[in-house]
Amino acid sequence: MSADPWLDSAARVAEWISDYRKRLPELPVLPDVSPGDTLELLPAAPPEAPESLDDILSDLDRIIVPGLTHWNHPGFLAYFSSSSSDPGVLAEFIAAALNVNAMLWKTAPSASELETRMIEWMRRFVGLPDLFEGVIQDTASSSSFTALLAAREQALPGSRTEGLAAREPGVRPLVYQSDQAHSSIDKAVIAAGIGSDNIRRIECDGVFRMRPDLLDRTLASDLEAGHLPVMVCATIGTTSSTSIDPVRAIADICARHGVWLHVDAAYAGPAAALPELRPLFEGWERADSIVLNPHKWLTTPIDCSVLLFRDPEAVRRSLAATPVYLETGVEARNLMDYGLPLGRRFRALKLWFLFRRLGAEALRDMLRRHIDLANGFADRVRMDDRFELVAPVPFSTVCFRAIPPDADRSAGPAIDGSSSSRADDWNRYLLDAVNRRGRVFLSHTELSGQFVLRLAVGSAHVRDEDLEAAWTELTHVYEDLRTD
Amino acid sequence: MSADPWLDSAARVAEWISDYRKRLPELPVLPDVSPGDTLELLPAAPPEAPESLDDILSDLDRIIVPGLTHWNHPGFLAYFSSSSSDPGVLAEFIAAALNVNAMLWKTAPSASELETRMIEWMRRFVGLPDLFEGVIQDTASSSSFTALLAAREQALPGSRTEGLAAREPGVRPLVYQSDQAHSSIDKAVIAAGIGSDNIRRIECDGVFRMRPDLLDRTLASDLEAGHLPVMVCATIGTTSSTSIDPVRAIADICARHGVWLHVDAAYAGPAAALPELRPLFEGWERADSIVLNPHKWLTTPIDCSVLLFRDPEAVRRSLAATPVYLETGVEARNLMDYGLPLGRRFRALKLWFLFRRLGAEALRDMLRRHIDLANGFADRVRMDDRFELVAPVPFSTVCFRAIPPDADRSAGPAIDGSSSSRADDWNRYLLDAVNRRGRVFLSHTELSGQFVLRLAVGSAHVRDEDLEAAWTELTHVYEDLRTD
Repeated sequence: MSADPWLDSAARVAEWISDYRKRLPELPVLPDVSPGDTLELLPAAPPEAPESLDDILSDLDRIIVPGLTHWNHPGFLAYFSSSSSDPGVLAEFIAAALNVNAMLWKTAPSASELETRMIEWMRRFVGLPDLFEGVIQDTASSSSFTALLAAREQALPGSRTEGLAAREPGVRPLVYQSDQAHSSIDKAVIAAGIGSDNIRRIECDGVFRMRPDLLDRTLASDLEAGHLPVMVCATIGTTSSTSIDPVRAIADICARHGVWLHVDAAYAGPAAALPELRPLFEGWERADSIVLNPHKWLTTPIDCSVLLFRDPEAVRRSLAATPVYLETGVEARNLMDYGLPLGRRFRALKLWFLFRRLGAEALRDMLRRHIDLANGFADRVRMDDRFELVAPVPFSTVCFRAIPPDADRSAGPAIDGSSSSRADDWNRYLLDAVNRRGRVFLSHTELSGQFVLRLAVGSAHVRDEDLEAAWTELTHVYEDLRTD
Repeated sequence: MSADPWLDSAARVAEWISDYRKRLPELPVLPDVSPGDTLELLPAAPPEAPESLDDILSDLDRIIVPGLTHWNHPGFLAYFSSSSSDPGVLAEFIAAALNVNAMLWKTAPSASELETRMIEWMRRFVGLPDLFEGVIQDTASSSSFTALLAAREQALPGSRTEGLAAREPGVRPLVYQSDQAHSSIDKAVIAAGIGSDNIRRIECDGVFRMRPDLLDRTLASDLEAGHLPVMVCATIGTTSSTSIDPVRAIADICARHGVWLHVDAAYAGPAAALPELRPLFEGWERADSIVLNPHKWLTTPIDCSVLLFRDPEAVRRSLAATPVYLETGVEARNLMDYGLPLGRRFRALKLWFLFRRLGAEALRDMLRRHIDLANGFADRVRMDDRFELVAPVPFSTVCFRAIPPDADRSAGPAIDGSSSSRADDWNRYLLDAVNRRGRVFLSHTELSGQFVLRLAVGSAHVRDEDLEAAWTELTHVYEDLRTD
C-alpha cells in the first residue's frame, strides 16, 4: 500500500493487464460461449454498496474474459485487425483522467490544437498535400457520414434547412460506389435521408475495382435524366478483397461532372506512408474527403478515425449549429462543427503518443512486415494444390479458398462468378472448424458469388508463428475433413 | 525498474496522473492561452525515431496541460459538468488494453451482453419499467439522432430505401420540440435530411416548459394540412435552465396523434434515481425513446450516453445493414444494428466499474449532495440584492443574473423578456472577469432574451469550498466593477 490509494488501484489494474497479456496467446481467440451465457452470470440489478477493486477484477476474469473475442490476440487475423499498442493504451488512460471535452476551442484549447496538429502529422505521414485539413471521428462510419452531409449540402444547397422532402420527387439525389464499397456508406446514405435505392452500385472488373467507364456512363445518363449526383465513393482497400478503385480515373470523372469525391481508405490509408506503395494511392490527393483509421492498421486503440477534407467550410456549412449557450466569442476553430456529436473525447492524445513513442520509421517497418507476412501466406496458398488465391494481395489481406479434395480443379471454384455451392459449404466447414480450434481467427466474405476465406494481417501483436499457425490449422483441418 | 517494461510505463503514467490531480485545484480552470499558442509549440511533422515516455510526459506538462480547460477541476461549474471518477478511469485503461469491438455479438460476446446488462442496471437505477431496452452510444447527439432515424422510418415507412426526396414536396416531415430544446436535436434533424425548417419550435411558459396546448394545436393543424409529424422531443432538464417539459401531457398528445415521443434527459436523467425527484420525471415511462448520459452527472469518463427504446425492432429496422462479411450465423443481438458507427468501444465496462466500485447508494448520495450545493448557492443569490434568480432550480443548475448597482430594481432585469442590454453587458463583464481569475468557471445562456449566468454542479470532484469560492468570486468582482 502506498500513501495514495489511486496509485495502488492503478498498479493493481496495470498488473491485471500485464497478466492478461501474458496468458492471452494461450487463450482461444474466439470464446466458447453461447448467447446468454454472460448475462446469466451478471446480477440483474446494480449493487447498493461498494465492492472492492479486487472483486471486480476477479469477476472480469471469471465472467468477461472467458466470453471475449480477443482482438489483441496475436492469432486474430479476422476482419481488418484492430489492435492496441502500448502508447495508445497509456494515452487513453491519461485522456480518461483528464476527461476534457474538445467540443469548443475554449473548452479544450490545447486538445483542439493537438488534434489539428495530429491531422497534419497523419497527412504528412501518408504523403497528402497541405491543403487537406480534418478532424478525428470515432469510426469510418461517422467520417464517411460527415463527408456525405457536406457533399449533400454542396449538391443540394439549402437542404440542411429545407430538407430533402422539399425537392421535386422526380429528381433523385444519387450516391455512386462500387458493388464492393463498405456497408458504412449504405448506412450513411440511409441515415442522411437519401435512401439506399439511390445508391448506384457500379460494377467492378475481374479484380473487384470499380469500372470507371460504367461510372462515367451512369453519371452522364443520370445527369441527362435531371437527377442530382451527390457523391462518388471510391475505395482504396475494399473490405472484401482490399481491391483498389482506379481513383485517378474516377477523380477525372468527378471533376468533369462536378461531383464530390470521397475516398474510403479506412483500412489501407496508413500504407500510403510507404513510398513503394504510394502508386496504389494515385489520385486520392484529388479527393474532396478521405477517411483513414489509425485504429485499424496503426494500432491505435479503438476509436480513432481521421477524416480529411479539402474545404473545411463545406463541412461546417452542412452541419454546424451553435446555440447561445455554446457561443464563446473566440475566433478559433470549434471541432464540434465538423461532426454530429457535440461531446468529443481527447482522441488526439493517442495519436501523439503513438507517433512519438514509436516513431514514424517503426510504424513504416511494421506496415512492411505485415505486408510481407501476408504475402508469405499468399505464396503458400498459391503453391498448394489444396488452396487457391481468389484476389490479388496489394496490402496485408489474403482472400483464398480451399479446393475440396475430389473437385476437378479445372472445373472447380474460380473467380468467374460460377456458383459452386459444394465448394462453398466445404470452405464454410473449414473456416468454422479452424476458428473453433481457437488458435487463430479468420473471417470470410463473398467474391463473385463464392464464399471466400479471408486472412488479414495488421495487429501490433502478430508474430511470424501466428501466420505459420494459421497455415498449419488450415491444412490440418483440411486433411481431417478429407478423411471424414 | 521491474522485469516488465509495461508495468514501469503504467506506473510512470499513474504517477503523472496522481501529480496532475494534486496540483489541479491550484491550476486555473480556464487556461490563459490564445488560438495558435499550442500549435506553435508542436512540431509540424511526426518524429522519425522513438522518444522516451518521460519526454512525452514532460511535453504533456509543458505544452498540453497549460492549454487545457480542466473539466475535472473542482471549480469547473460551467455547462453541464462532465467529470471522471476513478472507477471509470480504470475501466477505460482496461478497455483500451482489451481493445475489443462490440460491433457483432460474435466479435465480443461478453462485452455485448455486459452492455445489455448495464442498460438494465441503468434502467432500474432510474426506475424505468422493464420494457425499455437500449444501447450505449458516444453522446446524446448520437443517441437522439438514432432515435430520430427510428421515428422517421416509423412515420415514413420505406424512407430508408426510398429516401425523403421521393415524397410529395408539399408534405412536410415535422419534428416538434420546445424553443428550449438542445441544439443536438437541430443537428439530428439536419443530418437526417428532414431540414431545420421542419422543426416546430413550440413556445414555453414563463418557466421555460413546453406548452402542451400549443403542441397539441400545432400538431392538429399540421395533420390537417396533410403533413407528417415524425417525432416530438420533450426535455427533462433543458440545457439553458434545466426546465422540465410536462412529459405526461405531451405523452397524451403523442399517443393521440400516434407520434414518436423522444425524451432528452441527457443531463437530468440520473436524478430519477432519487425517489423524492421521481415526480419530475412523470410520463417519461411512456416515451418511445429516452437518452441519459452517465458521462454527465454520473462521473463516467466521456463518452457514454445511454439510449433507451421501447421497440428495438423499430431502431434496427431504420438503420441496420449487414453485408456478407459481417454475417455470423449466430442468433443474437448485434449492437452495431442500433446505431450508425460500426466500430464500438467497450463502454459498458466503465458503467460496470462505476456501479460496483461506488455502489448505487453512494451515487444517489452524490446526486443529493450536488442538488443541495446548487440550492445553497441559489439561496445566496435569492437573498442578495445584487443578484437574482431567473429560473427555478429543480436539479443542480442555477441560472441567475447580477443586477447592476445603480439599476432601479423594480425596473431592472427580470424574466419578462424585456431587453436590458446594459444589464446584459454588465453580466457579460462579470462572467468574463470571474472566469479570467481562474478559480471557478461558470457559463452563460440566454433566457427570455436576457444574458444569464449559469452555475452547474455535477462533478465527482466538486467541494463545498468551490461553491463558496464561486460566490466569493462573483461578489468580489461585482464590487470591483461597481467601484470602477
